Amino acid sequence: MSSSERPFGVLGLIGLGTMGRNLALNLADHGTPLVVWERDTALASLAREALPETTIWTDGPAELAAALPAPRAILLMVTAGPAVDAVIASLHPALEPGDVILDGGNADARDTARRQAALAGSGIELIGLGVSGGEEGARFGPALMAGGSHEAWARVAPALNAIAARAPDGSPCCDRLGSGAAGHFVKTVHNGIEYAVMQALAETYDLMRHGLGLSPSAIGDVFERWNTGPLQSYLVEIAADVVRTRDADGAPLLDKVVDQAGQKGTGRWASFAALDYGTPAATIAEAVFARAVSAHAEDRRALAAGSPGSISLGLDDLERALRASTLAAFVQGFDLIAAADAAEGWGVDRTAVARVWRAGCILRASLLDRLADAAGQAPDGAMLLHAPDLMSEMQDVLPGLRHAVSAAALAGYAAPAMMSALSWVDGMTRARVPADFLQGLRDRFGAHRFERTDRPGSFHADWSGS
Amino acid sequence: MSSSERPFGVLGLIGLGTMGRNLALNLADHGTPLVVWERDTALASLAREALPETTIWTDGPAELAAALPAPRAILLMVTAGPAVDAVIASLHPALEPGDVILDGGNADARDTARRQAALAGSGIELIGLGVSGGEEGARFGPALMAGGSHEAWARVAPALNAIAARAPDGSPCCDRLGSGAAGHFVKTVHNGIEYAVMQALAETYDLMRHGLGLSPSAIGDVFERWNTGPLQSYLVEIAADVVRTRDADGAPLLDKVVDQAGQKGTGRWASFAALDYGTPAATIAEAVFARAVSAHAEDRRALAAGSPGSISLGLDDLERALRASTLAAFVQGFDLIAAADAAEGWGVDRTAVARVWRAGCILRASLLDRLADAAGQAPDGAMLLHAPDLMSEMQDVLPGLRHAVSAAALAGYAAPAMMSALSWVDGMTRARVPADFLQGLRDRFGAHRFERTDRPGSFHADWSGS
Repeated sequence: MSSSERPFGVLGLIGLGTMGRNLALNLADHGTPLVVWERDTALASLAREALPETTIWTDGPAELAAALPAPRAILLMVTAGPAVDAVIASLHPALEPGDVILDGGNADARDTARRQAALAGSGIELIGLGVSGGEEGARFGPALMAGGSHEAWARVAPALNAIAARAPDGSPCCDRLGSGAAGHFVKTVHNGIEYAVMQALAETYDLMRHGLGLSPSAIGDVFERWNTGPLQSYLVEIAADVVRTRDADGAPLLDKVVDQAGQKGTGRWASFAALDYGTPAATIAEAVFARAVSAHAEDRRALAAGSPGSISLGLDDLERALRASTLAAFVQGFDLIAAADAAEGWGVDRTAVARVWRAGCILRASLLDRLADAAGQAPDGAMLLHAPDLMSEMQDVLPGLRHAVSAAALAGYAAPAMMSALSWVDGMTRARVPADFLQGLRDRFGAHRFERTDRPGSFHADWSGS
Repeated sequence: MSSSERPFGVLGLIGLGTMGRNLALNLADHGTPLVVWERDTALASLAREALPETTIWTDGPAELAAALPAPRAILLMVTAGPAVDAVIASLHPALEPGDVILDGGNADARDTARRQAALAGSGIELIGLGVSGGEEGARFGPALMAGGSHEAWARVAPALNAIAARAPDGSPCCDRLGSGAAGHFVKTVHNGIEYAVMQALAETYDLMRHGLGLSPSAIGDVFERWNTGPLQSYLVEIAADVVRTRDADGAPLLDKVVDQAGQKGTGRWASFAALDYGTPAATIAEAVFARAVSAHAEDRRALAAGSPGSISLGLDDLERALRASTLAAFVQGFDLIAAADAAEGWGVDRTAVARVWRAGCILRASLLDRLADAAGQAPDGAMLLHAPDLMSEMQDVLPGLRHAVSAAALAGYAAPAMMSALSWVDGMTRARVPADFLQGLRDRFGAHRFERTDRPGSFHADWSGS
């Protein structure tokens, strides 16, 4: 085994904010010696109290590099954006061919690809590392999604596998998911799906609370019951907790929370990518737009037209509606990964993605086992609905989604995630959609031409109606 | 009047493809002498046959600039993208302070802003000029949407006003709509709205054809009748023609058209902008995704689950559904323009936008008079739904949209434009949306914090459900 194939014994770590500090503690717990640097003295002293005494502290990128044996592995846990470029620029002169930088921030995959291209030829590799699970995940077991070369990954994998969350079958939720920016892209899509599933959950909560008139504690019971069935997932589990939580005065705490949801950009990036790669992941985009609607709170209060009334809808139907919407969100996300992979050539194995998401991340859910199976059943790179079991599950729950959408539409409940999920399924399972009509209009007003079903070629017609 | 305030007597024109040639003929018809250059010899000889003999032909940017009296005005009609940068770069050394370049291509507003920034300080101004109406519009009366300084516009306005389409009241559909990239941005939003309105029309056609079982000629009659009422518009007018058009064998031509709709990017740009500026313009994005669904034709045929059945829906309800969706698409577009304007400081007058769109462009419709009124009624920069007459029109037609969405959902017709329009209205007119629930989840899993309705500050809670 040459030195460039050996696993790293010591890891460099730059950035000891909450996420960096918790990852450092996790790494230390699992026996990885660390050489660290944190620019902010307050953050540094906070971390110094918590980290083992064997940790080597340095004063900057060059000192950190000098304190590491070559070939080096250095994990960056700095704020995504220009700070990453700045740290890489100051590290670069101190590094040698064979060294590996891991960017553990929430980077835009396009930035990661740009940085990898800039380093190409220097012999220094950048691995884009998606880290999911928040502060708690970082401390006790995150899901880790890496993109980069097999060689570089082989050398950092032991240290990262050791700290990752464990799936129910004991395997670490940590993998190299493809070359290039695959890791950060998969993390972006993870977050996009998270937006969509959360929005579907919010619509479900709204319909139960206001359409069916259930109390928050009754809704908590419903979510808890659903969490024992096919909907079993971290998000449904905490949904039960969140709706049950009471304020100091005993009233539901949610009712005191301002109804404006923030966002940090990854849902938007996933939507950009869906538009760019031509993947119909509308449910993710609708969830981003729903947050934009929520943010226009003053407009909403001024435009408010009274509250929507009660609906007639069985809880079983509503459960199926949530299952169908959740399934749609996941499948759209996996299709987006496949489309990006086809364009970028990362070589992503979607089964591996589903397996990595089984624990440690916000999306962890029993559904991921079915999705891993579906990724195996569907032809390579094909939309996941081609997997018979998944399509069969979708067909089972679709009637519930139809009833929920109809009830919401008639009573006045906004349900953008449910409605776009339904439109997506009904479009993707229709042999012929009315895009012939769109093409007719486009050829009429702009001579855009069209293709015919009965012979090859490109045509322009006189659409004057005669 | 100094030379820099005088209208240009002669116009330079680079690019004589279909659009450039037709604009040149239109300009020549209206007495503007032209100095032209076209790199492609075939296109040049095609144009030479058509243009008046007084046209001055040149061999390149430098010669064209030399043949024009200063201060110069040069209209670029070259393919949007790198070609525009290349032409500007080769023109630049031959130009002087006070000269004006107009980019008449379908540029991304971000590119236009970048080019304007690069020219700033040189005394040479770039006007981004959105040109709508296709080949026919270019030849006989386009809608022209300009962005740039008042001074530069004043000098090119006479020549461009002369060739523009005329609104019913006789005013030219040509205006400076703001500074900077305002013109190209407004054109991008025009096209985004066009995507959404066409998608709503396609869903309406689908529901009539397959849900109600109407023949294409009967549908043509319906569109024709609707075109005499509040839906009066170019798109509804040509929809009647398109559905009635028969193939050589007498069958509806549409049925021979491949159901895959192409796209050229502007719908996607409008969606990017909506995501970036935080404007809930979901109906535009859904229309882009609907084209993506159509493009996945092989998947759709393989996944097809039988045809959706018949629906029970009155034509009056369907007309109201189309009106509501169309109204939503336009209002979302105007809101997007307002949001971009607030961020970029272009100073866009939305009444002027509505007036420019009244003729010459694909979106021309009687609705634009009501939208111009609404832009006057709504507070400056506020969402257009704040205009009482517009909100009243929306409330009138909303029940039809509810019925259409419910019918489509229950029977299995994809209706993404209608459904997102409904979700948008129902979200924007709801005093309280379930984003409180989203914030609860986000604070639970990521300590993202939340605001309270009853006191200022930012809070983090223990959401453990007790």
